[in-house]
Amino acid sequence: MEKAFQKNLINIEPYVAGEQPKSDDIIKLNANENPYPPSPAVQKAIAEFDAGALRLYPPMDAAPLRQAIADFYGIDRSCVFAGNGSDDVLAAAFRAFFNSDKPLLYPDITYSFYPVWCELLKIPFETVPVDEGFNIHVEDYYRENGGIVIPNPNAPTTIGLGLDAVEDLISHNRDSIVIIDEAYADFSGVSCVPLIKKYDNLVITQTFSKSRALAGMRVACAMADPYLIGYLDAVKDSYNSYPMDAVAIRAGAAAMSDREYFEQTCKKIIATRERTAAGLRELGFILPDSSANFLFVTHPKHTAKEIFSYLRERGIYIRYFNKPRIDDRLRITIGTDEQMDRLISELRTLIQG
Amino acid sequence: MEKAFQKNLINIEPYVAGEQPKSDDIIKLNANENPYPPSPAVQKAIAEFDAGALRLYPPMDAAPLRQAIADFYGIDRSCVFAGNGSDDVLAAAFRAFFNSDKPLLYPDITYSFYPVWCELLKIPFETVPVDEGFNIHVEDYYRENGGIVIPNPNAPTTIGLGLDAVEDLISHNRDSIVIIDEAYADFSGVSCVPLIKKYDNLVITQTFSKSRALAGMRVACAMADPYLIGYLDAVKDSYNSYPMDAVAIRAGAAAMSDREYFEQTCKKIIATRERTAAGLRELGFILPDSSANFLFVTHPKHTAKEIFSYLRERGIYIRYFNKPRIDDRLRITIGTDEQMDRLISELRTLIQG
Repeated sequence: MEKAFQKNLINIEPYVAGEQPKSDDIIKLNANENPYPPSPAVQKAIAEFDAGALRLYPPMDAAPLRQAIADFYGIDRSCVFAGNGSDDVLAAAFRAFFNSDKPLLYPDITYSFYPVWCELLKIPFETVPVDEGFNIHVEDYYRENGGIVIPNPNAPTTIGLGLDAVEDLISHNRDSIVIIDEAYADFSGVSCVPLIKKYDNLVITQTFSKSRALAGMRVACAMADPYLIGYLDAVKDSYNSYPMDAVAIRAGAAAMSDREYFEQTCKKIIATRERTAAGLRELGFILPDSSANFLFVTHPKHTAKEIFSYLRERGIYIRYFNKPRIDDRLRITIGTDEQMDRLISELRTLIQG
Repeated sequence: MEKAFQKNLINIEPYVAGEQPKSDDIIKLNANENPYPPSPAVQKAIAEFDAGALRLYPPMDAAPLRQAIADFYGIDRSCVFAGNGSDDVLAAAFRAFFNSDKPLLYPDITYSFYPVWCELLKIPFETVPVDEGFNIHVEDYYRENGGIVIPNPNAPTTIGLGLDAVEDLISHNRDSIVIIDEAYADFSGVSCVPLIKKYDNLVITQTFSKSRALAGMRVACAMADPYLIGYLDAVKDSYNSYPMDAVAIRAGAAAMSDREYFEQTCKKIIATRERTAAGLRELGFILPDSSANFLFVTHPKHTAKEIFSYLRERGIYIRYFNKPRIDDRLRITIGTDEQMDRLISELRTLIQG
């Protein structure tokens, strides 16, 4: 029987949690997580954390974390904002910067949460098609808009834009805020952080969930002109009163402080990526050169769905998108060399019989 | 010079962070924080946390925490939702449950974030005045509405409703969702959790920031019929992709598991509250009996602002509200006995000269 209060409930399907695979048994290459643990400095920061301090609210501004990010990039702390993961930071940025009747522009193939925030915040938007090879052409963004957001490298396509192309994009859109979502930039070596001093309409977001192996801790940041950072602070303070927790602040700061470990693990992942790409191409897979910690692949003789299911039955989880333009593609996160050897070996059996 | 992109920025004042007092030097009675550290089980859970696990995304459903809450209350895990602090949980609940053209009802003197979410989510609302003594009369809520939210005990008034009154409120509003915000209920001894089995229109929210001394960790929960919990999960999963972090889940579960420590510290705070209330009344202060971990006081011969400033100069921070109906009142958080003795002693000097 329908109850009267049911008509006041939000019009979405109640969520039913999916089965969580026991991660010990499977090779998990489906969430672009880091195969290596975070820096030992993170373990130390957590182990030494004084739980007594938790009785107090955390510092609203996550100061130690912002300082560590500023130190890493050699920028002023006033240019840094921090939040509970990229989704928190991006949601605040959408709210702060995209208040226009003109459409926000972003690629048609890109991160799936952009349209969610547009719907939620009633932001008009238009998607800009990537080309047949999934490339973004910055000239397509030289038109009237209420803002632009582009991941660089883009996901799930793995393709990155060079610094010159991004600078062209920004300089041709000085009347809009341009967000460059650098979730995967540490695997490309191309970061636009140096451009924030030159362009006061540029906002860069980064996450600690990938290159810094802190997906479980929810840490991310934005970097921009201090004037824009003030707006992010205002939004976070006014509409969203969940600051970062005190442990996440310390863990994030510790991760940021260990440059050597960070560079080492990124280098390892990039090396494994190149080995894996070569191995897959040998098996007939077609894929663009990846600037990220994952590959975006297709095979002329086997459907994406078939490969996905084949691997899943053998305990290897990758990502299949049942979406227009990319439903023949698979996204494969780069794991350890050992994991990727297992992957290649299973695929060899499938493809060469 | 005005830049073109500025017109697309959100129309709020950029946030300028206030000075953070060095908490070693001051007695901080202004945020209703717990004067005691969290359970030693929390320190243990954090110290033993394997940072290696942070490379993976946290479990979306915060299962270990939900289980610990369910165990504490003797309810099924399907009746429990968890989030990053009360503000996260309440924001999800407002979004999930208050989709009506009829007004949401809540007291005129109450938690200051309710109107913020109403504005943000475009929820029509009407405030229901508390009486001259700041009491809520549940009969005032027996009218057409799109939902009800009431803190019990109410803040900043410290006044609690008995279980019978709350049950009257719920049973007279079976066509609406009623949220009882139990942020401070552990200091009153009155919790409506047992009523969730009887009323499928009841949602209870609780925070770990007060009675469980985890303000710095951002942990809170909602309890309700599993059907309603499904909607909270759907909202959190669809619109807000920042799950609880893995350390917060473990820390919260640890806090919930240590019933003895929890009951001990609540008892100490209640005893200190009663001593402090008696001491303040001796000095001529007028205040309702408190069911919370703070007091709501006024003095016939000294303005609230005067007392606030006097204490601040002496390193004791309390809360003054420059708002209609309560601008002659002060909110004083219960600290340790020692801190409250210092407070009383300073006030004695002010009042008795």
